[in-house]
Amino acid sequence: MIVKKIADVEAVSVQMDGAKDVRVRVLFGPKDAAPTFALRQFEIAVGGHTPFHEHPFEHEVVVMAGEINLVTEQKEIPITVGDVVLVPANEKHQFQNGSSTEMAKMLCIVPVEYQK
Amino acid sequence: MIVKKIADVEAVSVQMDGAKDVRVRVLFGPKDAAPTFALRQFEIAVGGHTPFHEHPFEHEVVVMAGEINLVTEQKEIPITVGDVVLVPANEKHQFQNGSSTEMAKMLCIVPVEYQK
Repeated sequence: MIVKKIADVEAVSVQMDGAKDVRVRVLFGPKDAAPTFALRQFEIAVGGHTPFHEHPFEHEVVVMAGEINLVTEQKEIPITVGDVVLVPANEKHQFQNGSSTEMAKMLCIVPVEYQK
Repeated sequence: MIVKKIADVEAVSVQMDGAKDVRVRVLFGPKDAAPTFALRQFEIAVGGHTPFHEHPFEHEVVVMAGEINLVTEQKEIPITVGDVVLVPANEKHQFQNGSSTEMAKMLCIVPVEYQK
């Protein structure tokens, strides 16, 4: 049984090409011997965004704070606390902070083999 | 891309032996073609609890509202908003509402093959 406070997990700046002002806390992943999936919290500062990209695995996302613009190839979808998203493999997507004042936070779950 | 509001997903009473006053919303699971893991929200009423049980797969849990007593074979651990738990396979566990006034809510993620 592993119990953690999210606030105690180190927040690391995301260095991927196309990411701006995003930090990630790996809540459970390979270092915890998570067998199947990794649980991460992303924190997107005002003006920040994740890359507009795709990859061969899915995301499941839970908005925890703030306002987010979910950008797809077809449209932009505003999401907020109470919303969840399944991003299928190989669909382009980006998460932009949609607020001019508030940090956006979201959980993002992926198959554990994609969490380095 | 599937976007849902948690409140729009049907809450179903959990009928397992040992469960009391628990409802579940399957946010993403087999019906959404989730490939690897299922995302559920459990809602435990005042006085309610999940079964004290074990199973051959892990949980990853995120407390979303209220106060929860996490019961293991060794001890009880109070958890609340901001806490996350990895319950390894084959470890006994129970989630009890720890408040006398407030509904407890938690996300619980499992390998999708265990979500019926």
